[in-house]
Amino acid sequence: MTMDRRLKIGVVGLGRMGKRHVHTLLYRTPRAQVVAVCSTTPHEIAWAKENEEYKEFGIEAYSEYNEMLSHPGLQAVWISTSTDVHASQSLAAIEKGVHVLCEKPLSTDLEEAQSVVDAAKSKPSLKVMAGFSRRFDASYRDTSDKIFTQQAIGSPFMVRSNTCDLRDDSGFFVKYASRNGGIFVDCAIHDIDLSLWFLGNPIPKACWAAGTLQHHPELKDLSDVDNAVGIVEFWGGKIAYFYCSRTQAHGHDVCTEITGTDGKVMVNVVPRKNNVVLADKLGMRHEVQPEYWERFEDAFVREANEFVDAVVNDGPVPVALETGIKVMKIGRGLQQALLTGEVVRFDERGEQVQASRL
Amino acid sequence: MTMDRRLKIGVVGLGRMGKRHVHTLLYRTPRAQVVAVCSTTPHEIAWAKENEEYKEFGIEAYSEYNEMLSHPGLQAVWISTSTDVHASQSLAAIEKGVHVLCEKPLSTDLEEAQSVVDAAKSKPSLKVMAGFSRRFDASYRDTSDKIFTQQAIGSPFMVRSNTCDLRDDSGFFVKYASRNGGIFVDCAIHDIDLSLWFLGNPIPKACWAAGTLQHHPELKDLSDVDNAVGIVEFWGGKIAYFYCSRTQAHGHDVCTEITGTDGKVMVNVVPRKNNVVLADKLGMRHEVQPEYWERFEDAFVREANEFVDAVVNDGPVPVALETGIKVMKIGRGLQQALLTGEVVRFDERGEQVQASRL
Amino acid sequence: MTMDRRLKIGVVGLGRMGKRHVHTLLYRTPRAQVVAVCSTTPHEIAWAKENEEYKEFGIEAYSEYNEMLSHPGLQAVWISTSTDVHASQSLAAIEKGVHVLCEKPLSTDLEEAQSVVDAAKSKPSLKVMAGFSRRFDASYRDTSDKIFTQQAIGSPFMVRSNTCDLRDDSGFFVKYASRNGGIFVDCAIHDIDLSLWFLGNPIPKACWAAGTLQHHPELKDLSDVDNAVGIVEFWGGKIAYFYCSRTQAHGHDVCTEITGTDGKVMVNVVPRKNNVVLADKLGMRHEVQPEYWERFEDAFVREANEFVDAVVNDGPVPVALETGIKVMKIGRGLQQALLTGEVVRFDERGEQVQASRL
Amino acid sequence: MTMDRRLKIGVVGLGRMGKRHVHTLLYRTPRAQVVAVCSTTPHEIAWAKENEEYKEFGIEAYSEYNEMLSHPGLQAVWISTSTDVHASQSLAAIEKGVHVLCEKPLSTDLEEAQSVVDAAKSKPSLKVMAGFSRRFDASYRDTSDKIFTQQAIGSPFMVRSNTCDLRDDSGFFVKYASRNGGIFVDCAIHDIDLSLWFLGNPIPKACWAAGTLQHHPELKDLSDVDNAVGIVEFWGGKIAYFYCSRTQAHGHDVCTEITGTDGKVMVNVVPRKNNVVLADKLGMRHEVQPEYWERFEDAFVREANEFVDAVVNDGPVPVALETGIKVMKIGRGLQQALLTGEVVRFDERGEQVQASRL
Repeated sequence: MTMDRRLKIGVVGLGRMGKRHVHTLLYRTPRAQVVAVCSTTPHEIAWAKENEEYKEFGIEAYSEYNEMLSHPGLQAVWISTSTDVHASQSLAAIEKGVHVLCEKPLSTDLEEAQSVVDAAKSKPSLKVMAGFSRRFDASYRDTSDKIFTQQAIGSPFMVRSNTCDLRDDSGFFVKYASRNGGIFVDCAIHDIDLSLWFLGNPIPKACWAAGTLQHHPELKDLSDVDNAVGIVEFWGGKIAYFYCSRTQAHGHDVCTEITGTDGKVMVNVVPRKNNVVLADKLGMRHEVQPEYWERFEDAFVREANEFVDAVVNDGPVPVALETGIKVMKIGRGLQQALLTGEVVRFDERGEQVQASRL
Repeated sequence: MTMDRRLKIGVVGLGRMGKRHVHTLLYRTPRAQVVAVCSTTPHEIAWAKENEEYKEFGIEAYSEYNEMLSHPGLQAVWISTSTDVHASQSLAAIEKGVHVLCEKPLSTDLEEAQSVVDAAKSKPSLKVMAGFSRRFDASYRDTSDKIFTQQAIGSPFMVRSNTCDLRDDSGFFVKYASRNGGIFVDCAIHDIDLSLWFLGNPIPKACWAAGTLQHHPELKDLSDVDNAVGIVEFWGGKIAYFYCSRTQAHGHDVCTEITGTDGKVMVNVVPRKNNVVLADKLGMRHEVQPEYWERFEDAFVREANEFVDAVVNDGPVPVALETGIKVMKIGRGLQQALLTGEVVRFDERGEQVQASRL
Repeated sequence: MTMDRRLKIGVVGLGRMGKRHVHTLLYRTPRAQVVAVCSTTPHEIAWAKENEEYKEFGIEAYSEYNEMLSHPGLQAVWISTSTDVHASQSLAAIEKGVHVLCEKPLSTDLEEAQSVVDAAKSKPSLKVMAGFSRRFDASYRDTSDKIFTQQAIGSPFMVRSNTCDLRDDSGFFVKYASRNGGIFVDCAIHDIDLSLWFLGNPIPKACWAAGTLQHHPELKDLSDVDNAVGIVEFWGGKIAYFYCSRTQAHGHDVCTEITGTDGKVMVNVVPRKNNVVLADKLGMRHEVQPEYWERFEDAFVREANEFVDAVVNDGPVPVALETGIKVMKIGRGLQQALLTGEVVRFDERGEQVQASRL
Repeated sequence: MTMDRRLKIGVVGLGRMGKRHVHTLLYRTPRAQVVAVCSTTPHEIAWAKENEEYKEFGIEAYSEYNEMLSHPGLQAVWISTSTDVHASQSLAAIEKGVHVLCEKPLSTDLEEAQSVVDAAKSKPSLKVMAGFSRRFDASYRDTSDKIFTQQAIGSPFMVRSNTCDLRDDSGFFVKYASRNGGIFVDCAIHDIDLSLWFLGNPIPKACWAAGTLQHHPELKDLSDVDNAVGIVEFWGGKIAYFYCSRTQAHGHDVCTEITGTDGKVMVNVVPRKNNVVLADKLGMRHEVQPEYWERFEDAFVREANEFVDAVVNDGPVPVALETGIKVMKIGRGLQQALLTGEVVRFDERGEQVQASRL
């Protein structure tokens, strides 16, 4: 590819994930060219300005997002900031005519999220995508192939999916907990997305949840918990249930099982860091990935490449933007059930109804 | 052991499990002597009367339960009939001064079950035990050891447990479905019992459930389903959740995970029939036990031996009779939630309260 | 079965395994009746005479093997002594007209072993069997079914089989090492037997081996090693290879793989003590059986029952006595290759030839 | 990195692997710039000349290797041709002052391989590396860390390693079999390398092997087999043994076990294509990678990056060139043992001695 045909992209947010996205774009997305990064955090922007690698690749560092949007020739942004500014940054980019890949969720506020969807619809030539990275994972793709192409399990009707994080004694996640919408919005959002994918986009009917605080009593003031389970019943006899945890001892344990009328697909039910098993006096053991990066690094690479391809070739984005809205409605329903102890119900269009019995 | 010191026991019910229990007592319970069997089903009693093995071991076959209870020297009965006569047969045996090992559950009617508990209490010298066979499984015993003796996972707070049966296209289970109290009472009862065991006898606070009919539409008339999930929240921040299925394609898939503050114990998460793996064009595969007998045969042996030992040595029975009542209250609560779509709530003593918000 | 139709059997040798065999016969072999035990070790015989269980079952304890052979009504013996007396005890029993189940191997001396085979042939009504217990294991039986009945792997041509024991720091095995014929005779004998079974009784052509001393330098004086690998090439393009170890850190690790033209069967390649996995800071781990008893207890039960059935019903013994001779020829060939560093060769009838090139 | 600081590299050989290497360099090796490719196969060079991607990246296609070596600014070559020209192409590059990454092995002729090592030594500023790709695999790196840094298994003394390829019914490998030096040179070379790595560079003492022809009788004329096992005994009580196969039904099955005095590391003993398990009427199954590319793609990426880094930063190459010579001596010894049926012996410096007994 001649250099000038590569997609000129900027990354906003230079936290742990933002830096990783820059790396993915530089090293593993040949049709992309990172031309700018942006952070409002002083030490991050200072770091970016001094970074030799960034200098060599000619990446300009901005402390103002709007300035970055005006970077000469900028064609797309990858938004990797905290959730509370996802929507406004997406809207500003759309306004500027810049393609958007925005980390999930668009917003924890449904109206705000809808405003992004509406803005995107108003500019159909722009590619605007929410980053549901698991959709790009090789094992989940294979699962989709087994279920929909090979029809290996008959008709899928039940999904179990977990997002269980390694306990983070640094307090990192607690710091961000106030902005993330609660455990079901923050952790289960991918699991909800997977259930929609593998159950064929069902409409929620009712949900309930229960949670507990085991390690982080400080979450109580945020009306949140550190471990929770929830069930979502869909119209048409389909069901999903989830377990979210912030406090696993053994690693990042993310698994999904899809049961159909003729079989079951199990994804990552026994998580493994690599192919190594150690046999010693304790028996036989393997390690587990410490966090989602190790599990999903290749999925982020595929996500970046497919987004870039969609822009360059003017094809459809691989995950429809509306998906994020549907997922968020369920996530917020589960969070509400968790807080109130009541069943949250939805009508046949998937709109939440009063908690009183339908 | 001299022959006359062996416990003289009769088995009532000669269905598939009743015959297996006779075999277990004959072949693998040296301190027991089967002296009688009983069935009200003509072909079963005819079979028993003609059975060479039973003749050789001197087993007398009765078609009247009360007659069997009067068999000379009979000391104990193993009740392996359908659930609807468990309580009356237990009460009759207790009345006669005969020790009782009764298959779970004592009754799907809580008052009736309580009447057995009360009768047993009135004769403290009698051993009366409900057969929660998983309590005797080597892997669950090891789990208990890891959790309570080795304290390997810190404080346990979350249980996931499944009872998923191989699809039975013969219609066998549907025939009995009307008497078994519904999927949560029939299938999840062991899972509920395990959650009480591993969470340290917590008191239920609330539960909810959702179900679906995928293969057996005829269950609709019985207000039952063939696949269901449920959550039980306990007072004190503990949670259990269950998946019951009648329709697995791959075998009898029963697993349990107990999460604690410092780790997790996983029991049978990858079920295997034996140690054999076949590698061929389809990849690598292993078979799964077709039914609970293959999974729990050794547990039934240990159960028989520990019950017999409790009688012979006048020790406590290994599972308290009241356990069955607690388990049944939760099972019925889940079944009620499944049918009504409402949350079922319990007070701090574990008594179910009105479905209105506490 | 009426009591007097049970097979009256005596067990000689009351070491760890002899006691287990008595238990198997008492508790899990209903057609057998243990009437006598024998040991020449004073504390064993004293223990047996005082044992309450033995008294209750009416088991008489002998310190003289010939006296036990004269026990009134004795029909069979299970020989569980050290290898050096297997042959003489078998011969004495055959002479007396008593059926024999003899632990493998009949003898480390091929001529002596042959003398037992010859004696057994001279009394065709007697059942004389060498105890190749793995032949009775459910997983190996399933393997045989997959290979020969289902023909799941095409034509089998390669066997890998390991017998790797947990390191025994007590020195128990070293004490008996001088009598056991060396590591390939003592450890690999079952693996050799399995390779003959699954490769369809091939004739050995050549073998070679290499060994090392890692933990038990005292074995050097016995010309033995504590870890060794060997290859056996058979006439007709079939091959088996073995790894024997006395010094595993993690448990009793016994696995077998049979490769055929269309697939592979793997038996116990990941050994597991039970269904339990513990997830904690070290990752996920399971325990391994500490010794062959945990792995093969059920196989010994089936062996006992099939031997007893063969006697009671006058059927063929499930493992031909000659098998032991073939196995021993290969085991000794490997041991010779280990000691000399030279290839040991066999002619097309399986007789060892001079070490010079054929 | 500014574009002109990237390492200008040419790839010679445009078969399946050569194309993959170009891709790895383009997409996943940011410090490298592919400036040229070369093939003497007309359709490959035609393909390269017409390839849009190659045009866009400005890659020039040569049909003469020497012309490619004169490409303006060329700094390094990646040699991915058939084994018979590895050495001459390496020598020509060294002569030109061009860095070399050469696929293993340097040559099946030891003298020729040594000539490359000598030439490389004469130009110490050049980086010349043989591509032992498994040295760069994350699981093997972790194994090295466990063994040498964590000392998790005590002193390693035994290696089992397999290279078992999926059966290739296309005849592709047979076509190249005449040039590849035989099964132990072609398949086991990585396993031998791993055994040297994990046993701490031991010196071979003796080896023996046995093989069989199961699917490719046409190999007989090449004095080769399609399945073989071999044992290598090293001086100092260390042992390695190997199984090579061309004919697996289930996939590319490459595993390694390293046993030490206190434990064992197992690498890829149960090979898996991804994290997906399918449960259906056949039980539970997972797929296996079809070929080494799926297993080792990331290792090739790391290899490319580490080689480029060594050149750019003038550091040592991560695998010493002499390693290839040591590995080849053992590989050829095993192949000789396979052909002759005799033990091949080495002196204490690792030089092969006459087949007569030392």
